[in-house]
Amino acid sequence: MRELTVELGERSYPIYIGQHVLNDIVPFFEKHGIRKGSPLLIVSDDRIAPLHLTRVVELLEAGGFTVVTHVVEAGEKAKSLGILEQIVGTALNAGLDRNSTVIALGGGVVGDLAGFVAASYMRGVRFVQIPTTILAHDSSVGGKVAVNHPLAKNIIGAFHQPELVLYDTATLQTLPEREVKAGLSEMIKHGLIWDAEFAAWCEENAERLLALDPEALEYGLYRGCEVKSIVVSRDERENDLRAILNLGHTIGHALEAVAKYNELVHGEAISIGMVGSAKLAVKLGHPENIYVTTKRILSKFGLPTRLPAHLETDAIMSAMMHDKKFKEGKMVFVVPTDIGKVEINKNVSADLVREVVEQLKQEA
Amino acid sequence: MRELTVELGERSYPIYIGQHVLNDIVPFFEKHGIRKGSPLLIVSDDRIAPLHLTRVVELLEAGGFTVVTHVVEAGEKAKSLGILEQIVGTALNAGLDRNSTVIALGGGVVGDLAGFVAASYMRGVRFVQIPTTILAHDSSVGGKVAVNHPLAKNIIGAFHQPELVLYDTATLQTLPEREVKAGLSEMIKHGLIWDAEFAAWCEENAERLLALDPEALEYGLYRGCEVKSIVVSRDERENDLRAILNLGHTIGHALEAVAKYNELVHGEAISIGMVGSAKLAVKLGHPENIYVTTKRILSKFGLPTRLPAHLETDAIMSAMMHDKKFKEGKMVFVVPTDIGKVEINKNVSADLVREVVEQLKQEA
Repeated sequence: MRELTVELGERSYPIYIGQHVLNDIVPFFEKHGIRKGSPLLIVSDDRIAPLHLTRVVELLEAGGFTVVTHVVEAGEKAKSLGILEQIVGTALNAGLDRNSTVIALGGGVVGDLAGFVAASYMRGVRFVQIPTTILAHDSSVGGKVAVNHPLAKNIIGAFHQPELVLYDTATLQTLPEREVKAGLSEMIKHGLIWDAEFAAWCEENAERLLALDPEALEYGLYRGCEVKSIVVSRDERENDLRAILNLGHTIGHALEAVAKYNELVHGEAISIGMVGSAKLAVKLGHPENIYVTTKRILSKFGLPTRLPAHLETDAIMSAMMHDKKFKEGKMVFVVPTDIGKVEINKNVSADLVREVVEQLKQEA
Repeated sequence: MRELTVELGERSYPIYIGQHVLNDIVPFFEKHGIRKGSPLLIVSDDRIAPLHLTRVVELLEAGGFTVVTHVVEAGEKAKSLGILEQIVGTALNAGLDRNSTVIALGGGVVGDLAGFVAASYMRGVRFVQIPTTILAHDSSVGGKVAVNHPLAKNIIGAFHQPELVLYDTATLQTLPEREVKAGLSEMIKHGLIWDAEFAAWCEENAERLLALDPEALEYGLYRGCEVKSIVVSRDERENDLRAILNLGHTIGHALEAVAKYNELVHGEAISIGMVGSAKLAVKLGHPENIYVTTKRILSKFGLPTRLPAHLETDAIMSAMMHDKKFKEGKMVFVVPTDIGKVEINKNVSADLVREVVEQLKQEA
């Protein structure tokens, strides 16, 4: 098992990563002050719940906790205010109070949704993350929680740090192949923005990671979480540095929105977005190697690098204009300046971005 | 004009109270860092908007701000997640970004709703309050913002402090009589919990306050805000002391819910609730005088002191069980121990509360 602390002053919290850490959920909860006198609410989805929910509930009940559960339909559509209202109904009916804890058992969607419930229920209760996807190694660090609006993703939310994160690599063994790849996409991103060596490690270990080798996963998730935690610790409220985590996300979020959140999963969308950012980098005068290497690594993982041609360029551009990363009308992009290094460019012209989007449809 | 600072460290903010302070909205905004490069969103309701919205928009536009507005139906029902989603749609379509400011122009409902929009839009943008009711002197201090759930009031929300509050007593001159009385109910509460002299001042100045005498209003609002701000400064996140502000609110919130948020306005409900708390105090052995004086002051303002008999006791009790102020199954009440002094009693039996509720229906 590896342990990592996300350093955020009085809001610091630990992440425990390893095979079967969930077996020790009760001692972990006891160690981190999760209260037994008030009901716990576990939020999960209908893909993960059949695999892991019963066991988690049984462990907690055997440990003296009172537990109520709310299972949502798997997929991005669960991140809505309507579903949030239903979950709050469950919480109220179960008598959750200000000493209660909301637990996310699932991937990034469940984490974001349950996290915003925890952030807003009675103006904030405790929160625990139990990520069950590789992708969630990203969303479980940093405290960003949110739901979507019909017009934009993640636009209604909060910063709400968990008490602890329990990352059991055993829960990843049942992940569908597509989700495995998509999750590794964010892991690669952490290499691309911060640590060229880690990016190279990812490329060298692509087969092991895709085969869900526990040792490789444990290290990859650990280092991925660590990179993110270093960035978040230096900039909790996303004023500046934290924006580098958005590599590939400006285009990626737009693609997800235009594809109505069901054709592309998040990791696929940002894979295409990262290729786009690399193309943009080259157009802005940075070394050609950035594009070549970025595309090679992502391809090695079987991740998409070409933008589906039927997604309309106008719709993609328009979706980007709603993106949080545009300040006062200017287009802001995370642009790689080398492998393992990025900069925030606040003066990218919309025409150049449109050119990149068009060219992404022609990629080999 | 009177100025008051709510002391909350780096989240401290000023409240400006006086006749026609709104005329200086542009210099106030400039002084407090409200940005011109990003659109402002004013949220108001259809009772206040016809009276004040055009003027505020014109002043701001003349001062170089870009303004978009969203007007909701007046009343507690606007505090819903559905309306929040509509407002966020307006914000997105107008291009509000992270440097934008959301402004509440209206009473407590608009303040709570717009405040939660500000707290959650892009995970938090700037917020300004322009209260147009007497009641809002209470909600404009302390940063508590929220919407309702069909099962409970104010259950989904955040703590989000404004940049500044502009309290123009001129906007109060058009308040319906019922709203005037209801607003003075919270002002009296601030006397009852903290400052017997101020409670006495309120009683002595009942006629002037009910007649909306500007000088009396300015002082009353100032001292009301000040009492609240002292309490909030010492306990921003409602861990302990801040709970004293809930005098009358446990019963009051339940009454509002059972009356479906349309028969009783908030100030009326808490007036009945404060009489209930005073009765509870006497039952718990505190001086009879508490009940006599509380009831006399509230009556002098024409506020209700009797619980409408058709509201079912069972429904009221059940609504209270959902209240945030119950921790781990115990009933918690703010109980006066004297005029100007209260205590938090965490061991009030449900039977005693039921007795009080029944007796409140028999009040003279």
